Amino acid sequence: MTPRFPTVTYDEAEDKLREECGVVGVSGVPEASLVAALGLHALQHRGQESCGIVSHDGARFYTERQLGLVGENFAGPDTAQRLAGDAAIGHVRYSTQGATVLRNVQPLYADVRGGGIAVAHNGNLTNARTLREELVAGGSIFQSTSDTEVILQLAARSPRAKSANRFLDALKQIEGAFALVALVNNRVIGARDPYGIRPLVLGRLDGGYILASETCALDIVGAKFEREIEPGEVVIISEDGMESRRFAPARAARPCAFEYIYFARPDSVIGGISVYQARKAMGRRLFQDAPADIDVVVPVPDSGVPSALGYAEAARKPFEMGIIRGHFAGRTFIQPTQAKRDLGVRRKHSANGAVLRGKRVLLVDDSIVRGTTSRKIVQMVREAGAREVHFRSACPPIINPDFYGIDMPQRSELMAAHMETGEMTRALGADSLGFLSVEGMYEAILGEARNARQPQLADHYFTGDYPTRLIDNERAVSDKDRQLSFLVDA
Amino acid sequence: MTPRFPTVTYDEAEDKLREECGVVGVSGVPEASLVAALGLHALQHRGQESCGIVSHDGARFYTERQLGLVGENFAGPDTAQRLAGDAAIGHVRYSTQGATVLRNVQPLYADVRGGGIAVAHNGNLTNARTLREELVAGGSIFQSTSDTEVILQLAARSPRAKSANRFLDALKQIEGAFALVALVNNRVIGARDPYGIRPLVLGRLDGGYILASETCALDIVGAKFEREIEPGEVVIISEDGMESRRFAPARAARPCAFEYIYFARPDSVIGGISVYQARKAMGRRLFQDAPADIDVVVPVPDSGVPSALGYAEAARKPFEMGIIRGHFAGRTFIQPTQAKRDLGVRRKHSANGAVLRGKRVLLVDDSIVRGTTSRKIVQMVREAGAREVHFRSACPPIINPDFYGIDMPQRSELMAAHMETGEMTRALGADSLGFLSVEGMYEAILGEARNARQPQLADHYFTGDYPTRLIDNERAVSDKDRQLSFLVDA
Amino acid sequence: MTPRFPTVTYDEAEDKLREECGVVGVSGVPEASLVAALGLHALQHRGQESCGIVSHDGARFYTERQLGLVGENFAGPDTAQRLAGDAAIGHVRYSTQGATVLRNVQPLYADVRGGGIAVAHNGNLTNARTLREELVAGGSIFQSTSDTEVILQLAARSPRAKSANRFLDALKQIEGAFALVALVNNRVIGARDPYGIRPLVLGRLDGGYILASETCALDIVGAKFEREIEPGEVVIISEDGMESRRFAPARAARPCAFEYIYFARPDSVIGGISVYQARKAMGRRLFQDAPADIDVVVPVPDSGVPSALGYAEAARKPFEMGIIRGHFAGRTFIQPTQAKRDLGVRRKHSANGAVLRGKRVLLVDDSIVRGTTSRKIVQMVREAGAREVHFRSACPPIINPDFYGIDMPQRSELMAAHMETGEMTRALGADSLGFLSVEGMYEAILGEARNARQPQLADHYFTGDYPTRLIDNERAVSDKDRQLSFLVDA
Amino acid sequence: MTPRFPTVTYDEAEDKLREECGVVGVSGVPEASLVAALGLHALQHRGQESCGIVSHDGARFYTERQLGLVGENFAGPDTAQRLAGDAAIGHVRYSTQGATVLRNVQPLYADVRGGGIAVAHNGNLTNARTLREELVAGGSIFQSTSDTEVILQLAARSPRAKSANRFLDALKQIEGAFALVALVNNRVIGARDPYGIRPLVLGRLDGGYILASETCALDIVGAKFEREIEPGEVVIISEDGMESRRFAPARAARPCAFEYIYFARPDSVIGGISVYQARKAMGRRLFQDAPADIDVVVPVPDSGVPSALGYAEAARKPFEMGIIRGHFAGRTFIQPTQAKRDLGVRRKHSANGAVLRGKRVLLVDDSIVRGTTSRKIVQMVREAGAREVHFRSACPPIINPDFYGIDMPQRSELMAAHMETGEMTRALGADSLGFLSVEGMYEAILGEARNARQPQLADHYFTGDYPTRLIDNERAVSDKDRQLSFLVDA
Repeated sequence: MTPRFPTVTYDEAEDKLREECGVVGVSGVPEASLVAALGLHALQHRGQESCGIVSHDGARFYTERQLGLVGENFAGPDTAQRLAGDAAIGHVRYSTQGATVLRNVQPLYADVRGGGIAVAHNGNLTNARTLREELVAGGSIFQSTSDTEVILQLAARSPRAKSANRFLDALKQIEGAFALVALVNNRVIGARDPYGIRPLVLGRLDGGYILASETCALDIVGAKFEREIEPGEVVIISEDGMESRRFAPARAARPCAFEYIYFARPDSVIGGISVYQARKAMGRRLFQDAPADIDVVVPVPDSGVPSALGYAEAARKPFEMGIIRGHFAGRTFIQPTQAKRDLGVRRKHSANGAVLRGKRVLLVDDSIVRGTTSRKIVQMVREAGAREVHFRSACPPIINPDFYGIDMPQRSELMAAHMETGEMTRALGADSLGFLSVEGMYEAILGEARNARQPQLADHYFTGDYPTRLIDNERAVSDKDRQLSFLVDA
Repeated sequence: MTPRFPTVTYDEAEDKLREECGVVGVSGVPEASLVAALGLHALQHRGQESCGIVSHDGARFYTERQLGLVGENFAGPDTAQRLAGDAAIGHVRYSTQGATVLRNVQPLYADVRGGGIAVAHNGNLTNARTLREELVAGGSIFQSTSDTEVILQLAARSPRAKSANRFLDALKQIEGAFALVALVNNRVIGARDPYGIRPLVLGRLDGGYILASETCALDIVGAKFEREIEPGEVVIISEDGMESRRFAPARAARPCAFEYIYFARPDSVIGGISVYQARKAMGRRLFQDAPADIDVVVPVPDSGVPSALGYAEAARKPFEMGIIRGHFAGRTFIQPTQAKRDLGVRRKHSANGAVLRGKRVLLVDDSIVRGTTSRKIVQMVREAGAREVHFRSACPPIINPDFYGIDMPQRSELMAAHMETGEMTRALGADSLGFLSVEGMYEAILGEARNARQPQLADHYFTGDYPTRLIDNERAVSDKDRQLSFLVDA
Repeated sequence: MTPRFPTVTYDEAEDKLREECGVVGVSGVPEASLVAALGLHALQHRGQESCGIVSHDGARFYTERQLGLVGENFAGPDTAQRLAGDAAIGHVRYSTQGATVLRNVQPLYADVRGGGIAVAHNGNLTNARTLREELVAGGSIFQSTSDTEVILQLAARSPRAKSANRFLDALKQIEGAFALVALVNNRVIGARDPYGIRPLVLGRLDGGYILASETCALDIVGAKFEREIEPGEVVIISEDGMESRRFAPARAARPCAFEYIYFARPDSVIGGISVYQARKAMGRRLFQDAPADIDVVVPVPDSGVPSALGYAEAARKPFEMGIIRGHFAGRTFIQPTQAKRDLGVRRKHSANGAVLRGKRVLLVDDSIVRGTTSRKIVQMVREAGAREVHFRSACPPIINPDFYGIDMPQRSELMAAHMETGEMTRALGADSLGFLSVEGMYEAILGEARNARQPQLADHYFTGDYPTRLIDNERAVSDKDRQLSFLVDA
Repeated sequence: MTPRFPTVTYDEAEDKLREECGVVGVSGVPEASLVAALGLHALQHRGQESCGIVSHDGARFYTERQLGLVGENFAGPDTAQRLAGDAAIGHVRYSTQGATVLRNVQPLYADVRGGGIAVAHNGNLTNARTLREELVAGGSIFQSTSDTEVILQLAARSPRAKSANRFLDALKQIEGAFALVALVNNRVIGARDPYGIRPLVLGRLDGGYILASETCALDIVGAKFEREIEPGEVVIISEDGMESRRFAPARAARPCAFEYIYFARPDSVIGGISVYQARKAMGRRLFQDAPADIDVVVPVPDSGVPSALGYAEAARKPFEMGIIRGHFAGRTFIQPTQAKRDLGVRRKHSANGAVLRGKRVLLVDDSIVRGTTSRKIVQMVREAGAREVHFRSACPPIINPDFYGIDMPQRSELMAAHMETGEMTRALGADSLGFLSVEGMYEAILGEARNARQPQLADHYFTGDYPTRLIDNERAVSDKDRQLSFLVDA
């Protein structure tokens, strides 16, 4: 199958961690698919590769899954006609597990005994491969390589009569991080993993409900924020209202620290805390953790802007847009062979010489991953005439991989995993380098110290302290890719 | 999903029965996918809507399924690279069951316990819906609406250890007409239904084997015809050679009469009989069954040509190409509103006035289905100046539906199902109308009389004598479409 | 510019001369663009690469030019809306001059003093390059590389006031073969070259007129044939009726012999002679010119059918469809490397062994060009079991190039231009080879002998006797491609 | 012609003036087309609808023109192969004149006496229609509706022998605003209008030269800024170096004020002045011109950021990103019918409630055009909890249309053209509204007062003082659209 390939807005050269998905569920609202589409558009930063919506009109399911952006596929006037009904769920995806083929685009759908079921999922199961192998041995046929299908197959195999109960059966067997929305006929179901690693919020819209990964998706449709879905909670929303049940014991959420640092949109609120304010506070604290004698604070745009504002405020130094970010998509440009310097980074960022020339510049970015982009930016700022270039990361050094749905390089590619700060400083070509401390991060985000026995955030990137067992990962690496590489779908 | 829609070569206005599929299997031949592609190209007349090839290179499966023609998708130089290996199966399809979406394009593939399995299928199961409902109740998830997936799911559920045995388990449970090719790792499997309704032949190519719906697919690749697969036989071809087994008792084949009449390519040989010669013989016999005093015999091209040659030979009258057929694809043209006559048929057929003017013309077509096109052709020939227009069908009147994989109108639309010959003659506007008799058809094709207790052909179109039970069809019609219409995939 | 490439129905391997264009003009008929579209569809055999229609609704021009087939582009219900008005001209093209880029797709349009003018053209000017260079020197800017733009530029430069007069000015300056239709505001103009080499006919439809390259385009829309446009005549059709004028002295037409041999559709009538009957007559005469002791006459389909019918009739031998031609488009298939024989020809033609085996077969084709396909067909028929294979060309040996709009190989590639018949026989692998004589061709088509001083046909392919001067060609070859290769438009 | 439509990154709802084009020229640099592509990418903000590059390799021209972004079309590794040579010119376009069809995409090319010529143009001619009519009357054929073709046709008609002289002849006849780059064989020519309204700069790259609309295009390729092209100057760059000539008398440039206000990229330098610093200075001065008692300064992103930084600095108030701008393309979303509020603006901007709630907010935007977006933003900020909402425009009220290549609404749609400030304040729903004064703008950008007799900027938007005669515009409006609407190209 050769789908027309979408405009790639994702930049392979961009040196960032990647959230993989966003989800939306809408119940009891006319033209639910349109509302879901707007919500997905607000979550577009969580995945730009594909998008899908499934709706139910009381009698039938309607499904449409596409490569590309929400606005390219679901903005048109016939969306509500194509995807009829008062209930809908939707998904945006930047894939980590499973090749990017349409059969992996979510929401996934299946006919099961007693009706249909559609599921959309943000996160990653840590026992997906183990469960999949058991299911295949029992005669199940998988059509996708996605974790999400494991949930569907478990529900299909459940002996219980009611669809919602079968779905609960499935939830009890999976492990890892997940924010799920499902459509079981015209009931919308939402569930969040036992540790609350991935976010999921609930809002009211007119008489109905809306579930979404972030509050910014409630705002875009004019919905009122109600509360977060709790860790281990499942909510079942139908015409008769909302029912809350549990598939895991109650405990405090341990949200992913990187939602605050980079993934979430700055206007979202997670755990009652404004993401924008958390970032500014991290910037202010960063000045305490890593001060410098400089003339001007410059963000690496766009993600470094709030923490740079905080840093400048604490440092009482001017904040200037010394780096301009272009917003036009496209493949990485080929470098002319005669070019003496690497022009790569410049197609995305350019130096604003007027505010850099002759200055001691402090650059603030949200994080340092591979360091490849950071190095080019330091060089670019220096070539534009900066007298000194200091680099600050508004999060602690990233030294461990994630297993909960984040796309990130191998540990061996993480700059901070194999270099001391001095070595990194030289590698970046900076005059100094500094990081926010783990303690500083907790203070800035939560206003309290880290509880080492029961950390309040999923902070394994920095600490290696994983909230859950890593079941698939504990098995031998050698057979790791067998299943997925078995079929090559051209 | 919005695939780029293929050039439609199928003419909705064309008033014909439609074969729905062709299959090919290749084993033990280098670049097997290229050989399969050529074979499928020779079978293109059996399905123009989609095509697919699955290959195996000893380690992995490679699969590619496309809308459109074989020559548009698999003719290129990289086919053998994309679809590597010495074993391959392929499929062309004009769909009857299941909407035309890519997920229904064959061959279908599944990971099962012990490896992968791919299946391509020509025919129709008469108990597919019944089996599907049982499987869904047991927790199976269907991703397509195609009959073929029932076979895959049955094999996945089989408790037996060896893949070939699991496939045999599946074959024993299905009923209807089917010519199947499957790829179980690098073994190619071929199977033909217990009555041998759909055709499947075996050839040798270099050291390897090739299976195909028709001998013309052997000819195009230079393979040597070996024999037909027998009714109820399954052959398993691997590096160690070919093994033959049975899943149903031995009996004489009862091939579909319409393969001789219209479906098969004239250069193919079925049951040892040349299709072209059978058609000429039907034309000669048609003259005996329905003679006329005329000046010239004119075929309705292209399918009427051999029988018209036979008729002209028997009648000792000139054969002339009095109707020209265009071969350029495209949608049905909109009729200008001022046009006084229906111009529809003319975009496909045009009258060659020079051989019609002032003549008593006898038109020979392979069959009459709805009669709509026949009526327009009679009118067109008359307007071109023919003095008399006589119409002859080189098969008996079609009065019953098919349940074995043929796309045909409802019984209510079959002209001969609700009109006497006199009424049909008037409806067509012809000066006379005649059909080949059922007895004539048997004599012409087989050279022997019909055995009423055990008919030698599947001739239910004309006689209502169905070779098998029609299990799904015996159930209430009211719930017939429930399952398939449950999901609307935009 | 990267247009989506059309389905290629043209087969590069097919060893034929190629007509390059067909034209239609419609005046005084409601929904003229729909009528033009149907007419172009009937002329699709004259060009499959691109198509275009320009209409005028009394106030404005509407134009649409596309790659691909008429039925893919102009069959839809909105054609008459997109291209409004009672006057329209249209064009189908298989290009010889000018790369296939959209800017060369016809009809061409220009704003000139006093209004707009659109032109569509079948043929080739023999002084196009010379005129073009003069115009460029005078300050004209060409946007296409097509001959047709020369006509437009000449009309634009004419000092005369009336558009029709300016068009006449242009016609007087061009040389070569041309059948032109033009739209000057809502007047439709038709013109045919001074020798009548390319065909152009006039018909009546309701109260209006239709011009077309062949009568089959009149038939498809239900128009009544009126007469041919005369050599050197220009007709100007408006609401006030039709006016006929001359731009060259009256003389008898000298139509291109290849229209009778291969280009025109068999149901067309040229110069009062049925193309189909002419071809049958050539077949009958071919038997006289080149008889053989054989068992069966087999046409190389489709173009060899009428002459084979004539040959069989004269020879009193059976006519059989011993070669089957597939009609599915697509690129040339890659040949599997292990294949011992060239399978290329088989994707288009296949041998019908049942009528060839053990027989002395005489193959009739319309012509022999390079001989490459003929050789493969002889080999294929022999491998299918024919005892002897005799080859006959229903036209004389082709030994000279054309300069009037026909796409054909260089002289060095023309088999008959550099081989004696005996050598050709061996090269084709045939048991005998025979051609229609030039005298035979005249007798068969016209029923009279060739007038050597004033030949009745453009027969330069066989005789080297060109009807016109070849002005561009008389200039040095060295600078031949300078102009056209100056710009490479990616 | 139906090109595949590009991803529309332009937002029709966005309430801004639009620059229509950017140009680049490269001479004496290997892989000149790649360098041009990078330069065009840096100028992408000047036009996103189409892009094109023409190169010359010493022998031939190579041209490619596309709809869509530079990065979608010219980023690939084969760009330098497709468009060979050491000389190239390029163009990005957001069209004002001429429908968006490929034939209007630049650079335009023509064969003229003595070679080829390609032209790319930013600006608008004020006598284009007049010149066009004269040329058509003289026999010229236009293939596009673009102003730029007038320049080509004038050069083609020039009687002078040398191409560069013919180009100078053309420049002397045109009026208006233009920054032109041309390729005359392998010479690159640059020219700027007599008043220097549109920008054009010159840089050095290795041994060669680069011309570009803005300095940011020099920076991206690592070129060194040399100087601006002077008003009325034409530079001719070849292997022998650069020659400067004049087609109009020397005078000080009068650059378009809106380049400083909104069009140019903030990191560009125009007339020796940093655009970013000019905007910050306008923000500072805006505080003086229109102070307010507020808690927080919030930019309307992205264009309002520098002036908001300046305002906050002058006002000594916190600067906060109180509005978040999404960067994902797509059509305007359909509004769900039940939505009580207009959700339109929210797909692009969203309120960051955490910094707005309970605050007296001052919004800074670069300008107010129709006011439609401003009104929605005020409402959104208020709904997010702001106690007061004050609006400031960092440029003076826009009350007059432009005729120099800017896409802007009719005067009747310009909010400030028909409302007093008080009325506007109420229409926007703001607590107060303020504008930068014209004097303030001069002081902020140039550091000097406006010279009323010879204004230093093209400031007609605010003052009605047009730098040039408006020749076409002085003619009757009634015949204005005749020429362009003559042909409808589907």
